[in-house]
Amino acid sequence: MSPKELYNVLNAVVPLYFSMLLAYSSIKHFKLFTADQCSGINRFVAIFAIPLLSFNFISRINPFHMHFLFLAADSLSKLFVLLLLLFWSHLFKNGSLDWSITLFSIATLPNTLVMGIPLLKSMYGDEQEDLMIQLVVMQSIIWYTVLLFLFEFRSARNSLMEKRSSNSVKEERGVSEEELVHVVVANYSLAENEIQRSQFVTKVSPELEEEEEDNEEKFPGIEELSKQQAGVCESSVQVFSREDEIMREEHEKSQIGRLSVLLILRLVCHKLIRNLNFYASVLGISWALISSRWNVKKPLMMENSITILSNAGLGMAMFSLGLFMAMQPSIIACGKRLAAYGMIIRFIAGPAFMALSSVLLGIRGTTLKVSIVQAALPQGIVPFVFAKEYDLHPEMLSTAVIFGMIVSLPVTILYYMALGS
Amino acid sequence: MSPKELYNVLNAVVPLYFSMLLAYSSIKHFKLFTADQCSGINRFVAIFAIPLLSFNFISRINPFHMHFLFLAADSLSKLFVLLLLLFWSHLFKNGSLDWSITLFSIATLPNTLVMGIPLLKSMYGDEQEDLMIQLVVMQSIIWYTVLLFLFEFRSARNSLMEKRSSNSVKEERGVSEEELVHVVVANYSLAENEIQRSQFVTKVSPELEEEEEDNEEKFPGIEELSKQQAGVCESSVQVFSREDEIMREEHEKSQIGRLSVLLILRLVCHKLIRNLNFYASVLGISWALISSRWNVKKPLMMENSITILSNAGLGMAMFSLGLFMAMQPSIIACGKRLAAYGMIIRFIAGPAFMALSSVLLGIRGTTLKVSIVQAALPQGIVPFVFAKEYDLHPEMLSTAVIFGMIVSLPVTILYYMALGS
Repeated sequence: MSPKELYNVLNAVVPLYFSMLLAYSSIKHFKLFTADQCSGINRFVAIFAIPLLSFNFISRINPFHMHFLFLAADSLSKLFVLLLLLFWSHLFKNGSLDWSITLFSIATLPNTLVMGIPLLKSMYGDEQEDLMIQLVVMQSIIWYTVLLFLFEFRSARNSLMEKRSSNSVKEERGVSEEELVHVVVANYSLAENEIQRSQFVTKVSPELEEEEEDNEEKFPGIEELSKQQAGVCESSVQVFSREDEIMREEHEKSQIGRLSVLLILRLVCHKLIRNLNFYASVLGISWALISSRWNVKKPLMMENSITILSNAGLGMAMFSLGLFMAMQPSIIACGKRLAAYGMIIRFIAGPAFMALSSVLLGIRGTTLKVSIVQAALPQGIVPFVFAKEYDLHPEMLSTAVIFGMIVSLPVTILYYMALGS
Repeated sequence: MSPKELYNVLNAVVPLYFSMLLAYSSIKHFKLFTADQCSGINRFVAIFAIPLLSFNFISRINPFHMHFLFLAADSLSKLFVLLLLLFWSHLFKNGSLDWSITLFSIATLPNTLVMGIPLLKSMYGDEQEDLMIQLVVMQSIIWYTVLLFLFEFRSARNSLMEKRSSNSVKEERGVSEEELVHVVVANYSLAENEIQRSQFVTKVSPELEEEEEDNEEKFPGIEELSKQQAGVCESSVQVFSREDEIMREEHEKSQIGRLSVLLILRLVCHKLIRNLNFYASVLGISWALISSRWNVKKPLMMENSITILSNAGLGMAMFSLGLFMAMQPSIIACGKRLAAYGMIIRFIAGPAFMALSSVLLGIRGTTLKVSIVQAALPQGIVPFVFAKEYDLHPEMLSTAVIFGMIVSLPVTILYYMALGS
């Protein structure tokens, strides 16, 4: 790699860090913004800047000319890591679903949109932008949904176990369909209440409501649960036994499993319809399909209207990250040991799995390099947002995001140098 | 004007309004942001986005190839309006300095940076961007300073008159040097205290402090005034008489006038060193001078670092305007009659004076059209900020900004059509 090439990369990356550090020091040193004011900026980024940036990028690709081999390699590596972790959590004593979810996030979900596009473009040329956008599409439509499913599955299981262990009436029998459904339904109505309470009210789509009515025979409690949730929870909890193993087996084998999976999927849907990035990606890919199929272009007025705010996306996203960094009591919130593990998984294990599956699928040359370097980007923000929402190792994820930002600069450049240009 | 030309203009302007309306409806209809969160976004725009946008534009011009005739015409029209208004306020009974300042702002200070650049570019071609930037330079370095001076002069005079009229000891004699100086010094120390209290602490530059020490013999009260301001004010007020007319004459003719002008200038300096836009403009023009003189270019890393945030400037400025619009109890805060006067002055009188002075200086063709249309842009934001800070008809200025935004779209297009392309 020539000094000129390194200089090009720095020209693309340093501005991102500049924006982040400006925000960091405007809080740490100048106290320019109060906490509320920061949350205003962050909300603007989350609600407008990033979704419009996603839409703007995604709507420009040609979905009929995607690099399917590259995407397959990406999916393969993610799937491989996920199965490995689930295997570990199910079959090993020290395995845990909680850590499986966290490690999956850290190993496989980098910050492709904000960091990946400018960095990889500067390293391997403008034509890599398309590859990065394709990864963004996969991430936001498929992999974030998978992650949400894992989180919802975990919280359904946890509520069940909690209620069991707090239950004084021990009836020595297996778990019935009714029981598991009750818990998932309780979670479901909790989520519904949460939606109603939340500032950003999204009306439940009519189809879902219809479905609910159809299901009434099967789960007579749904409507009531929503209304008198606490009471119903208590009564439904009374029949739970403590037998974890039986529950697990039942859960996997019987009718119950399938039913609760359906309900968890519904919970995931509920989360997704409140997730603007998911909307932005689905709309973006839909537009891309239409525009590539029938060669339609966005009216310039619409294009410009999106661009004027999505232009703010890149800088503002980094600024928002800097504000977040400054608001944390510590950059390494999860402790040094865990941070070190996190960094190894993010910057070594993740790229290694990606390299492995790319090579397995016969990817060579620049695309192989791109696939490895993009896997060594700092942690994506969305997994951190989920981790915080579900309160699952948020300090580990925040460290991966913040400390990862700092570590990734030399690391990606090292990868770049090692792989040759 | 062909429909295609109109379409081009709309393509440039509609996105600006889109951004504003998005913000407006995110508050009015969806309540996405609290007041504090809005202030965070506005602060970001004021502290980072707009100054960086100014710097980015201004630093790119060549100060040795400015369109000096065009700038002279602009200055002439502003000067003409100002003198006319001052003449009216001094010599006519119904004249007032307060309304002179407000009318000067409304007649001569449009929103050149955010609205002017995209609009005029779309109307008369990319090469007009340079003309608009040159106007921005003049506005932010010269005309906002003049405006600040007027505001500070007014508040010095008002404090004097207030203290006089509240003074119970009526001594029938003229105003002495000491008296006027005391008032201005009191204002000065008030401003100093304000600076110390304000979040955005700027250390008074060492030269100013030195100067202060030099002046100690002349104004022995300065240091004490800062410390025990209230007490000193009271004692210094005791000697003021009520004779307005005598004061005015003295103020204009004698030594006192010149002394207090110097002190007011200093107050203006104090305001300017806290004004990031002024900094941005001065830095921008300095860089432009250096880079044009010695053909130096900004390092790409620096250029990109500025661009990443200044890119946010245009959309965010309009977004911030939309938030401001939504937070007002009424879009026409100053009442319909005043609003109508304001609109006539902004969109008819302002462009008329500009047209007159341009024609007088021999400007013809496209440049004449540019000079007229740019004078018919909506009200600039900075004069509103000053009006609010000095509490001088802020509702009139806010109406000129907000209602002016709505009125200007058809008005500028009408001008464009009337002038022919």
